Amino acid sequence: MRHSVLLASTALLLAAPAWAEEGMWLPGQTPALGDKLKEAGLELAPADLGNLKVAPLNAIVSLGGCSASFVSPEGLVATNHHCVYGSIQYNSKPGQDYLTDGFLAKTYGDELPAAPGSRIYVIEDLRDVTAAMNKGVTTKLSGIERYNRLEANRKALISECEKQANRRCDVRPYFGGQTYFLQQQLEIKDVRLVYAPAGGIGNFGGETDNWQWPRHTGDFGFYRAYVAPDGSSVPYAKENVPYKPKSWLKIADKPLREGDFVMVAGFPGVTQRHWTAAEVRHNFEQVYATDQQLRADYSAAIEKAVKGNKEAEIKYASILKGSDNYKKKLLGEIAGADAIDLLGRKDRADAEFRAWVAADPARTKMYGQALTDLDALVAESNQARVDSLRLATINRAQLLTSAQLLYRWAKEREKPDAQREPGYQDRDRLSMRERLTQVERRFDAGVDRVLFEQALGEYAKVAADKRNAPLEAKIAEIRMDRLYGDTRLGNTSERIGWMDKPAAEFEASSDPFIQLAVAAYPGQKADEDKAKERAGRLQAARSAVMAGQIAFAKEQGRTLYPDANGSLRFTYGKVMGKQRDGLIWTPFTTAEGLVAKQTGRGEFDAPKAAIDKLKARDFGRYADAKLGTLPVDFLSTVDITNGNSGSATLNARGEFVGLAFDGTLDGVVSDWSYDAAINRTIHVDSRFMLWTMDKVDGAQRLLTEMGVGQ
Amino acid sequence: MRHSVLLASTALLLAAPAWAEEGMWLPGQTPALGDKLKEAGLELAPADLGNLKVAPLNAIVSLGGCSASFVSPEGLVATNHHCVYGSIQYNSKPGQDYLTDGFLAKTYGDELPAAPGSRIYVIEDLRDVTAAMNKGVTTKLSGIERYNRLEANRKALISECEKQANRRCDVRPYFGGQTYFLQQQLEIKDVRLVYAPAGGIGNFGGETDNWQWPRHTGDFGFYRAYVAPDGSSVPYAKENVPYKPKSWLKIADKPLREGDFVMVAGFPGVTQRHWTAAEVRHNFEQVYATDQQLRADYSAAIEKAVKGNKEAEIKYASILKGSDNYKKKLLGEIAGADAIDLLGRKDRADAEFRAWVAADPARTKMYGQALTDLDALVAESNQARVDSLRLATINRAQLLTSAQLLYRWAKEREKPDAQREPGYQDRDRLSMRERLTQVERRFDAGVDRVLFEQALGEYAKVAADKRNAPLEAKIAEIRMDRLYGDTRLGNTSERIGWMDKPAAEFEASSDPFIQLAVAAYPGQKADEDKAKERAGRLQAARSAVMAGQIAFAKEQGRTLYPDANGSLRFTYGKVMGKQRDGLIWTPFTTAEGLVAKQTGRGEFDAPKAAIDKLKARDFGRYADAKLGTLPVDFLSTVDITNGNSGSATLNARGEFVGLAFDGTLDGVVSDWSYDAAINRTIHVDSRFMLWTMDKVDGAQRLLTEMGVGQ
Repeated sequence: MRHSVLLASTALLLAAPAWAEEGMWLPGQTPALGDKLKEAGLELAPADLGNLKVAPLNAIVSLGGCSASFVSPEGLVATNHHCVYGSIQYNSKPGQDYLTDGFLAKTYGDELPAAPGSRIYVIEDLRDVTAAMNKGVTTKLSGIERYNRLEANRKALISECEKQANRRCDVRPYFGGQTYFLQQQLEIKDVRLVYAPAGGIGNFGGETDNWQWPRHTGDFGFYRAYVAPDGSSVPYAKENVPYKPKSWLKIADKPLREGDFVMVAGFPGVTQRHWTAAEVRHNFEQVYATDQQLRADYSAAIEKAVKGNKEAEIKYASILKGSDNYKKKLLGEIAGADAIDLLGRKDRADAEFRAWVAADPARTKMYGQALTDLDALVAESNQARVDSLRLATINRAQLLTSAQLLYRWAKEREKPDAQREPGYQDRDRLSMRERLTQVERRFDAGVDRVLFEQALGEYAKVAADKRNAPLEAKIAEIRMDRLYGDTRLGNTSERIGWMDKPAAEFEASSDPFIQLAVAAYPGQKADEDKAKERAGRLQAARSAVMAGQIAFAKEQGRTLYPDANGSLRFTYGKVMGKQRDGLIWTPFTTAEGLVAKQTGRGEFDAPKAAIDKLKARDFGRYADAKLGTLPVDFLSTVDITNGNSGSATLNARGEFVGLAFDGTLDGVVSDWSYDAAINRTIHVDSRFMLWTMDKVDGAQRLLTEMGVGQ
Repeated sequence: MRHSVLLASTALLLAAPAWAEEGMWLPGQTPALGDKLKEAGLELAPADLGNLKVAPLNAIVSLGGCSASFVSPEGLVATNHHCVYGSIQYNSKPGQDYLTDGFLAKTYGDELPAAPGSRIYVIEDLRDVTAAMNKGVTTKLSGIERYNRLEANRKALISECEKQANRRCDVRPYFGGQTYFLQQQLEIKDVRLVYAPAGGIGNFGGETDNWQWPRHTGDFGFYRAYVAPDGSSVPYAKENVPYKPKSWLKIADKPLREGDFVMVAGFPGVTQRHWTAAEVRHNFEQVYATDQQLRADYSAAIEKAVKGNKEAEIKYASILKGSDNYKKKLLGEIAGADAIDLLGRKDRADAEFRAWVAADPARTKMYGQALTDLDALVAESNQARVDSLRLATINRAQLLTSAQLLYRWAKEREKPDAQREPGYQDRDRLSMRERLTQVERRFDAGVDRVLFEQALGEYAKVAADKRNAPLEAKIAEIRMDRLYGDTRLGNTSERIGWMDKPAAEFEASSDPFIQLAVAAYPGQKADEDKAKERAGRLQAARSAVMAGQIAFAKEQGRTLYPDANGSLRFTYGKVMGKQRDGLIWTPFTTAEGLVAKQTGRGEFDAPKAAIDKLKARDFGRYADAKLGTLPVDFLSTVDITNGNSGSATLNARGEFVGLAFDGTLDGVVSDWSYDAAINRTIHVDSRFMLWTMDKVDGAQRLLTEMGVGQ
């Protein structure tokens, strides 16, 4: 049995490059990909797959930072454990440790409010608004004028779209602003935590296994969307009822096997595959070196500061986890860039494109100047990137950040809504309030002070003319003892209370953090204007160059997809392991491997009930006949990045077979360049999810709702 | 082609447990293993394999800490790069960086003196001396009397043996002193560095790949043994000539393949497979936790202290490498113990043995009291182990250690030679001198001071009655500035000059480090006496318990092998990868994998000439027809530990096929318990060695000498 599985593995591995498909595609690109999708195994009609009005795409939702999907007619949402982590933490306290023990609501009434600011965004539309965005945008405008014009057009589009009740709309640039799409989502504001397995399942392997294969993490959890009894989207209220989605994903009942077609739909955050060679080189040689050091110092400082203080430890767990994760990813990107010779790749691609432009006078006329402009702007932006990394460390001081948000909120409110900065408009009131509230669960004055002092040390390393002198003078005048001793911003109601005060009241305030925010403001505005001027010019140059890149690709018979930008994408591939010299990754991990890793402490501490049943091979109907055991996680070639966490993984029929939750460390350089021989996505297998729900946690209520018979 | 190799892998992997053979066997155990050896594939007569008078065993040598072997009639010795690392470092200096560039002597005359203290020990005999050791050892003796009696018998045996010119003899306990063997070796004192590939080959992958698979390290280097023109062993002299060994290993000309029988003969250092469950538990729960922290702080302190000082960096490279390696191993042991449930295993084995003893009055009479005594002694020794870890940190101060060695040397010389402590007898004069000389290449006063200050912080954490009060008082009196400012021990000739001075001169000295050594001495002697008392009682109890273990094993049809203790052993197994859930290790790495890892900087920086030829597939006659490429490293199931580094790996005909150089991190717990499913040894393949010598470094002179036609 096992033997033949391995033979199959081998055969498929050798064929890998032929099957693998790079690309984070826009739904609208499905028709162009039709033949390839069919050839790869898709059983749905490609055009249906691209249609946002029908399943599966209209069952896909965003959590803002994570992806997710409806899996029941009652608004049940499946996503990763690490995507609901903040809400588990928010509802935990000493003596009620859901992070460790897990949480299961026995009834609707037991479902808990998610962390403040939690949202479920239901995708409704994604339409091209390039023409509307470019209205009035001429070559005569200065950088900042261009920036402001685009911003005004963008706000007008959003504002128009958001006249529909409870809609959240945004307009994002694609190909560096060569195209713009408007994404319209229904915003669900009452999000509740329904179920999360024990930390020993949901985060099994912890940091040790993070970004690694073989993996045995049950990285899943469930939210539910709630709305008012009349169906409208409102904040949490006791009388709210489960939201009825238009579609939900059917849980697959045919077993997923090696070589099967899979696809993932979600909201990948950011990639840099279209950056210029010079930008990539500077990033790896300068920016990442600085960032690595800053992150390492930050994590070390948090760990030291919370040591022996269980309450502070819980408060900073989420921040620390995020920082560690990022640090590890950076390391992986750097090693991965070396391994695939990223800089060489970029140099070669850049040279090819430039040669193509130079080879034809018409092309030179169309793209030549833009290329020259882009090169100059990239050089100019590079140093600013390193500086801003150091300068931004002071935002780790949570009360300073709160004070700055509040003062900025007041200043922006002096302007008509449409002219305010994004994030400070009336539409942002609730999220601003929640952001300010959330501090209470993640803030400890003693820890914050240590982190602020460390940040100021980094800040001081930046050249004086790049720093904010009035801010520094004010900090020196107030000093740390008074800053933390006299502020009342640590109190949530006081903090929130500032949201309705005019700027003048801030300027007259004696609260030391408010005073810092006021002192910093003029310098920050000036810096922002400089950045906008640069951004406007960059948009002009980059969008023109990208138009050239698209034309170049078309001439070669390639379809370009835009860099990830947080909007809905789909990617497809195969369930498949991989082979390196001396090493083979087989595509599934299983119950036996989980049991072998279990130590009963630290990061490898699955609940005893789970281990006992796995050892007893009590797999129920969830075992795979071909593997001869219960699958846990699997590998595929789908092309994802941060933001795709929690994305539903679908089989060829569009049915739910698991959740994407990670990549591997040697593949994270895919944000810069995808390589089919290297990049793999790690998914938790739906059968392991269902087994845990059924056999370990007794979540029969949810299984029934999901249409899974037990 | 590649396909069929993989199929073969799979088939063999499934059979793994059936083939794997645990055991670091004494040569004298070959007859008992005869059938098993034949069955496993050995083509030599088992009795010949155990014979120290003929090949292959009489071609095996020790370097003291590493293993090695003669590979030519001219005394050429093959071992690991990391075993000749100290000698490469010793001969390097700014502008002549053999660590990076490698070193190849073009002629005999170009061969360089190895680092002071380097030795080649040629095995000549290993004979049972249990009866002679136990002469006068009765149950009436106190612990320290027993210890001293055993020590006196041991010295007498050694002294008798060393009446033969140029022999180095030692007597070691086996099974906790249940048996003793005398090992007699010819001591070669003129050792020269002949060849080491570039660091980018010999240490390819560095710390990143250390203890990892897949591996692509060419961890090999060559020494040569030199003797006086009359054949006697003398220290370095220009007129010395290459030593003619009785035997040397033939380089295999048939390709090594997956599944082939392999064996390794060498000098494994220390294992703890026969420790009691209580000892193992205390070790993992207490000792290792402390050791980890001490090592981590030590490495960090060195790194910080040498930063930006290229000379200090070179001086401390070897110390740092050793510390990092140890740190990583500790981590692996801890994780590995969890993974195999070591404590549970030990508890169960312990319980079985105790039940067997208890089940029979005769057995209870023979072993019962010894078991009770052993338990009590183990409990007593446990805390002492943790304390001594901390106390020993001050030995990191190299001039303090030198001063203590020198003063002890003077004090011991007041006694007749036979009564002196081991290490301080006339036979130890040269090695003591070389040890004191070696400091000059690894000492920097500024760095040493930082490390000493750190060590004193750790020292102070031990309970006051366990510390050395006069030493501490003297340090406080002298203070750091004067200690490092006024000492003359940093000067090598001054340091060596103390070797012939009487104790009284030390006691009158104004040198601050000498004063510390004098102040510390009485307390150290007292501690030593306490340790001897305990050691004597432990030997009595443990040897009796081990006699019981041997009887228990025999009754079950098992043959016990003793824990590793630095004496000659052999181990056999198969060339074989392994399988874990989600992962397969294939047994060979190849040229393609090395090229894929190459980044051209840091730890993955093989010489351009090597990479160019690998890319051009210029493998010469060294490629493997079945693999279709050049093998680099391979895995086997042979059972090794520290001290086996550099061990020749032999095929079924006793021919040289490579060098053992590492284990994998998940397998280092084998020092405590071997697991055939987990433990693998990593070897550099002789074909990669020969290819590098031939194609990269032009070492044709050596190849010819080794009988390898090009």
